[in-house]
Amino acid sequence: MLTTELSETEVSALRTNKERLASDLHHSCQWGSGIRWGDGPTDTGMQRLALSQDDKSVRDWFIQTMKALKCNVTVDEMGNIFAVRPGRRSDVPATFIGSHLDTQPTGGRYDGILGVLAGIEVIKTMNDMGLETEGGVGVVDWTNEEGARFPISMVSSGVWAECIPLAHAHNLKEVPTVASLPTAASAPETMKSALQKIGYLGDIPCSYKSTPMAAHFEVHIEQGPYLVSANQRVGVVTAVQAYRWFRLNVIGRDTHTGTTAFEHRADALYAFAQMMVRAREVAASKGCLASVGIVDAKPGSVNTVPGQVSFSLDIRGPETEQVAEVEKELRTDFDAIAAAEGAGIGKPCRVEWTLDFDSPAVKFHEDCIDCVQQSAQAVVADASIADTKSLVRTIMSGAGHDSVFTSKRVPTSMIFIPCKGGLSHHPEEFSTADDCVTGASVILQAVVRYDRKRFL
Amino acid sequence: MLTTELSETEVSALRTNKERLASDLHHSCQWGSGIRWGDGPTDTGMQRLALSQDDKSVRDWFIQTMKALKCNVTVDEMGNIFAVRPGRRSDVPATFIGSHLDTQPTGGRYDGILGVLAGIEVIKTMNDMGLETEGGVGVVDWTNEEGARFPISMVSSGVWAECIPLAHAHNLKEVPTVASLPTAASAPETMKSALQKIGYLGDIPCSYKSTPMAAHFEVHIEQGPYLVSANQRVGVVTAVQAYRWFRLNVIGRDTHTGTTAFEHRADALYAFAQMMVRAREVAASKGCLASVGIVDAKPGSVNTVPGQVSFSLDIRGPETEQVAEVEKELRTDFDAIAAAEGAGIGKPCRVEWTLDFDSPAVKFHEDCIDCVQQSAQAVVADASIADTKSLVRTIMSGAGHDSVFTSKRVPTSMIFIPCKGGLSHHPEEFSTADDCVTGASVILQAVVRYDRKRFL
Repeated sequence: MLTTELSETEVSALRTNKERLASDLHHSCQWGSGIRWGDGPTDTGMQRLALSQDDKSVRDWFIQTMKALKCNVTVDEMGNIFAVRPGRRSDVPATFIGSHLDTQPTGGRYDGILGVLAGIEVIKTMNDMGLETEGGVGVVDWTNEEGARFPISMVSSGVWAECIPLAHAHNLKEVPTVASLPTAASAPETMKSALQKIGYLGDIPCSYKSTPMAAHFEVHIEQGPYLVSANQRVGVVTAVQAYRWFRLNVIGRDTHTGTTAFEHRADALYAFAQMMVRAREVAASKGCLASVGIVDAKPGSVNTVPGQVSFSLDIRGPETEQVAEVEKELRTDFDAIAAAEGAGIGKPCRVEWTLDFDSPAVKFHEDCIDCVQQSAQAVVADASIADTKSLVRTIMSGAGHDSVFTSKRVPTSMIFIPCKGGLSHHPEEFSTADDCVTGASVILQAVVRYDRKRFL
Repeated sequence: MLTTELSETEVSALRTNKERLASDLHHSCQWGSGIRWGDGPTDTGMQRLALSQDDKSVRDWFIQTMKALKCNVTVDEMGNIFAVRPGRRSDVPATFIGSHLDTQPTGGRYDGILGVLAGIEVIKTMNDMGLETEGGVGVVDWTNEEGARFPISMVSSGVWAECIPLAHAHNLKEVPTVASLPTAASAPETMKSALQKIGYLGDIPCSYKSTPMAAHFEVHIEQGPYLVSANQRVGVVTAVQAYRWFRLNVIGRDTHTGTTAFEHRADALYAFAQMMVRAREVAASKGCLASVGIVDAKPGSVNTVPGQVSFSLDIRGPETEQVAEVEKELRTDFDAIAAAEGAGIGKPCRVEWTLDFDSPAVKFHEDCIDCVQQSAQAVVADASIADTKSLVRTIMSGAGHDSVFTSKRVPTSMIFIPCKGGLSHHPEEFSTADDCVTGASVILQAVVRYDRKRFL
């Protein structure tokens, strides 16, 4: 059976296997299972930081699994793993399904993991059916998507897209606050050395030129409350909001907490506290988000006023310009806050900004969006309600994903499924097996439809 | 020559040696010298955390020096080092001069160090003069006064005074934020094991009963701006302000920064920021101080809203009751701040308080204060101004000192000298050699006067 020979009805009837997907997903979560939140065997979060021993174990399993499914596996210089099920034609790039197997330090079982596992499930379904595609179909595990260990998210799809220089990525040092890694605090490891250490520094150049793709599809939990609160089943993702990540340093003056009056202080942590409060005010007034995830106050002693504070600032908004406006206003406000703290002694605090990451708003590709839209409608038609169309909506992604970078080079789009309470980056992150298999079935059909679009 | 045979004029003429004191002080700062701030050979701060290798080195030097000065040296179970120059009578306790040789992680060359070095200088002066005392004169180095490595300040004088149980002190774990210590982040060491490791777990019980004292005098930099800005030379310390140290935990919910609207967050770090701003407001309104020196946000990832924040809170005020009032108001306010953050999703933040340390306001002993007052007036009489009396003032200490604990068991008082800009707990902490020797001469006379008061 060949994709281009199927009828529309046959395509719409394609489904993946719910039990097998759930079983594989939880099997893969044995490596790096995290904080327990319930009594069930799978009621734990995940703590599988990029390139840790647990990440190595799940990578080994992924490669073994894909080879057993007759896929050709390659690893590039960023440790990205590409597993391709050959199509009828060997002269064209494969259509990829991709996401990531790394997690946040207190993450869950679905963010990223579902995307890769859905890819495995698609290949298993195609193999079982004996379904042949014109172009190949690949599954990719992108390295360090979370940016939790090495502080640029989507860094390896970024190198692949040639948006981030390889050397910059290789030299990234692990974040010391991620204390679960023994090296982080004392001698932070670089990404290159971490890749070497677990045997995943591949020799293929990390580039869309060396590993070309026809398209990139990604299924992901929404990580927000819209689908779940509207009882909708599928989000057809058309765009990704803009965001910018900064590192800020506030420089004040260390001094004794017991003997230094407030007016004699240049308290860098007090300045930070005011800045964080102000950041939410400004972002909210412009329909944006501003968040601090990391803060480090030095010297870190109960009775010394901190003279140095560094913190992360993550600003997001629907449009690139809105994010720029929030940044502009905060630069002015933070300067004013710093200038006031320490003014009494003529030694005001100073604040320095470093831009770590800039991701403008992304619009996904019409062809891919169409494939997802049709597939989503076909899959939710199983539901026992009259108006199944209402179970699908278009949606913008609040978070960045590897699809942001693939979209710079190849047609891309994404599929969202609901997650409990819209909660993510938390051990209790949860999606039902039904919702997971819906996502996998939609991506199966989307890949088939895209193959037909290319070759029919 | 015997103290009790001196005339008042002879006592008032006693002086220590400026050059020798300065030279010894900077010599001792070779162990643990810290951040450089100027070009001169002694223009660095200090980083000599309690029971570190550098602390061991300076302790070894201290013992060697005191033995060479014919003192008897003992070490107790908390690593406190007592060096006693015998007096004429062997049946009475010695009068002690004490302070500490440990520093803050970004500390200076005077806080604590001057107090011990002034003691050494007093013994050297007495030896040179052949001055015999009735009771002995001791110098004590108290362990971990700063509380920077093991998070209770003055912990070892506290055990000596039997105000802090030995086991509690021995089990204290080093603070992980003090990253200069290799063990701190990965496997925090206990105080007992740190004592053992550097060979300073003595076998004498740590108690005022085993190592009795007749009195305790301490010379210290003011660590505040009053003396220096009034051009005064000596502060006769009559009292120490009250303070309480707390550890607080704010528990919210980890969630994704990009996909979680503000109203869906229980952001523990945002709650902390509001609390810190509020703490200063409330403390200022009641004539008190409130400071945060340590903050730790988990999980510590750029794109995860922190679900858990712990921080230190140091509240101080002239009277015990004022500190209690600030605490009471902050408990109410922090609860309200926590309750508001996360209320939108029915999962408000919570805040938990732990009292780590409680030091009520202290009034020093009249006899000791008198000795210091007379000695200070005698020493500043050298100044070439008409009204030398104006160079001395009484003062309250903003910081805690080992003298707080000794005052619970024996007559105690302190002497302050000016420090540049009132700055302390900072590498640039500085007092002139003239001011240092003034402090040493005052304490020399005070010890002699106290000896005369006992036996004349």
